[in-house]
Amino acid sequence: MLKENLISKISKRAKEMQASPIRKLYPFAVQAKRRGITVYHLNIGQPDVPTPVQLLAGIKSFNETVLPYGPSDGLLELREEIAQYFKKFDVEVDPSEVFITTGGSEAVLFAFILVGDFGDEVLVPEPFYTNYQGFAQQVGITLRPIPTSVEDGFHLPNREVIKSLITPKTKAILLCSPNNPTGTIYEDNEFEEVISVVREFDLYLLVDEVYREFAFDGRKPSTLLRFKDIHDRLIVLDSISKRFSACGARIGFIVTKNTEALSAFMKMGQARLCPPTIEQWGAINGFKHIDEFIDDMIGEYERRRNVVFEELKKFPDIEARKPEGAFYTVVKLPVKNAEDFAVWLLKDFQHNGKTVMVAPAESFYLTPGKGVDEVRIAYVLEEDKLRDAIRILGKAVSVYNQRGK
Amino acid sequence: MLKENLISKISKRAKEMQASPIRKLYPFAVQAKRRGITVYHLNIGQPDVPTPVQLLAGIKSFNETVLPYGPSDGLLELREEIAQYFKKFDVEVDPSEVFITTGGSEAVLFAFILVGDFGDEVLVPEPFYTNYQGFAQQVGITLRPIPTSVEDGFHLPNREVIKSLITPKTKAILLCSPNNPTGTIYEDNEFEEVISVVREFDLYLLVDEVYREFAFDGRKPSTLLRFKDIHDRLIVLDSISKRFSACGARIGFIVTKNTEALSAFMKMGQARLCPPTIEQWGAINGFKHIDEFIDDMIGEYERRRNVVFEELKKFPDIEARKPEGAFYTVVKLPVKNAEDFAVWLLKDFQHNGKTVMVAPAESFYLTPGKGVDEVRIAYVLEEDKLRDAIRILGKAVSVYNQRGK
Repeated sequence: MLKENLISKISKRAKEMQASPIRKLYPFAVQAKRRGITVYHLNIGQPDVPTPVQLLAGIKSFNETVLPYGPSDGLLELREEIAQYFKKFDVEVDPSEVFITTGGSEAVLFAFILVGDFGDEVLVPEPFYTNYQGFAQQVGITLRPIPTSVEDGFHLPNREVIKSLITPKTKAILLCSPNNPTGTIYEDNEFEEVISVVREFDLYLLVDEVYREFAFDGRKPSTLLRFKDIHDRLIVLDSISKRFSACGARIGFIVTKNTEALSAFMKMGQARLCPPTIEQWGAINGFKHIDEFIDDMIGEYERRRNVVFEELKKFPDIEARKPEGAFYTVVKLPVKNAEDFAVWLLKDFQHNGKTVMVAPAESFYLTPGKGVDEVRIAYVLEEDKLRDAIRILGKAVSVYNQRGK
Repeated sequence: MLKENLISKISKRAKEMQASPIRKLYPFAVQAKRRGITVYHLNIGQPDVPTPVQLLAGIKSFNETVLPYGPSDGLLELREEIAQYFKKFDVEVDPSEVFITTGGSEAVLFAFILVGDFGDEVLVPEPFYTNYQGFAQQVGITLRPIPTSVEDGFHLPNREVIKSLITPKTKAILLCSPNNPTGTIYEDNEFEEVISVVREFDLYLLVDEVYREFAFDGRKPSTLLRFKDIHDRLIVLDSISKRFSACGARIGFIVTKNTEALSAFMKMGQARLCPPTIEQWGAINGFKHIDEFIDDMIGEYERRRNVVFEELKKFPDIEARKPEGAFYTVVKLPVKNAEDFAVWLLKDFQHNGKTVMVAPAESFYLTPGKGVDEVRIAYVLEEDKLRDAIRILGKAVSVYNQRGK
């Protein structure tokens, strides 16, 4: 039917966008399950903890007869609740400085549009959340990596290294702390180095704080808003997905004290009219009652983190570190190609009828060849399963390396 | 606090994006209301009809304990319901050919990213829905106008005119039928002309069918999917906002039989993870029960359309035509500058304590100077109010033109 020879070509950017690298592993997971094998999913950032009932109750409390467009910057009540929420972190935020987005995703997209035109550059420590690259490609921004490594716990290089990466096209530095995919939380002195560079080169500082509360070992959850000297150029990107275990809600937000940026976000927001209304009702209630559930939730993740690290330590071949926050860690495996290994885990391996699915980390890097022997582990399973899963992973590594020997 | 001299410059595109032209009238409306004046809103596309209870029940039926990421292309059940819905229009759509977006807004955004790279062009009949321009600017697409006019009922020019507008950078033609802002429904022969041009120049055809059911005077609602010879290059953009009176839900969709486009949309969709989950549950139920409410809803709008046209006819100075669908019409007023008039309506006019707010049409045009004496009227009020509003508008025009005489 379709005249193949005539079909219009799609754009270069649409062609070059990467399909989800984890996605291509799914068919193998499906096949493994069909063979009756239990697959532990360590590959996804979808928490299994229940969405707080307070948030779900907020959703159900919607009782209007018309579901109309809401304000482009989000419902005032939600912006007020978020401003209130920041008091916990000893920073003053006005509701007018909060802009509600459709997921943290849209927050990233809008921030890229704000800071750059086509071909402009944003620096980001690698490994990083792969979807940053998808948004950058969509709107013509080039991401440039700031190198970090598992050996340094994925902490930032010094300011001279960062400065050497700046070009006339660099418009911003994008940080994520607590970090997806590494679990690293930057120290104040690291932030201060970045801030000094950002000020010196007149850049924006974008910071993804989606995992703000996911800070372990007594670390106090915080926000870069505590650095007042960066308020003129700081754009905080955030989302309710993780702290409310409500990834499907698609409610994110931007906080900034830069009024020019706020006006620009309003223009972008008006084009897409408004973020989803019903889920905002849920988010309002989530923030109202956050103190009732957040500590338990974070405690649960910290126990899981401990389990993961405790079990990983038993396999000296695996180069792992104790992540400081979020619910991920990137580990270096004694394998040549972690993607091959991940496929093999699903296709050819099982231990007592079970196997694990991990996310090969290569796609979290821009620098060719980096991360090729690394995987990201998300600890979004209950403790017992998690313990079992890590043991199976460790076992699998040695079986994999014994093949054919 | 902020060091103004150091603040990073925002991007050119963020600076150049237009703020909502209607928005700047709002302060005047607020002031009028403070003075005790009733303001009839003819300026917005927010229907006042209740959201069908079936859709609201669908939202409330969400009863999972976790609100997780959904599929990037939307819930299968929703895609199945939409495929089923298209049977009413005698076209075959497979659920795999439906891609759920976050509002019709995202459908437009994704379509622009699909067809063009930075600087590429999309032709669109003017006047057009202003937000097309917002999305185009965000992703670096240049919109070029196909001229239409109130005198021709905003129908399309012949194919030679359209062909003359095509450049090597033209990648697509974007139509909207039934049209926002004009209410025009194109005839088959107009579509056929466009299709022949699109085929000849190897372009994509994007068609916004958000108002599909809003077809009056016995016109049968339809879809461009009925033209099978364009299936290879047709991208249908749609949304539940209007037909389900659920603008705040942010559920849109794309339908296409072009598998390359579907893969590209999947990549864009994966970057932003998924559309809002809860509202998809509402939409599923909306499509399931659409036959229970859609005829009444459309009947209501047709009666309103009749009221608007009947009343407008009484003012021979106003150049109006009977719109064929949607719930808008663009009329030419005997004023020099419709924006001045719109401001005056709110600031300086009242008739028995009432006035009207209209949308100046200039911003719906790209060609400088066009539409400067036109306004868009949205008939989203009950009949009695609408009749009163149009009478007040007619009265206001003559008062406005008598000023100072």
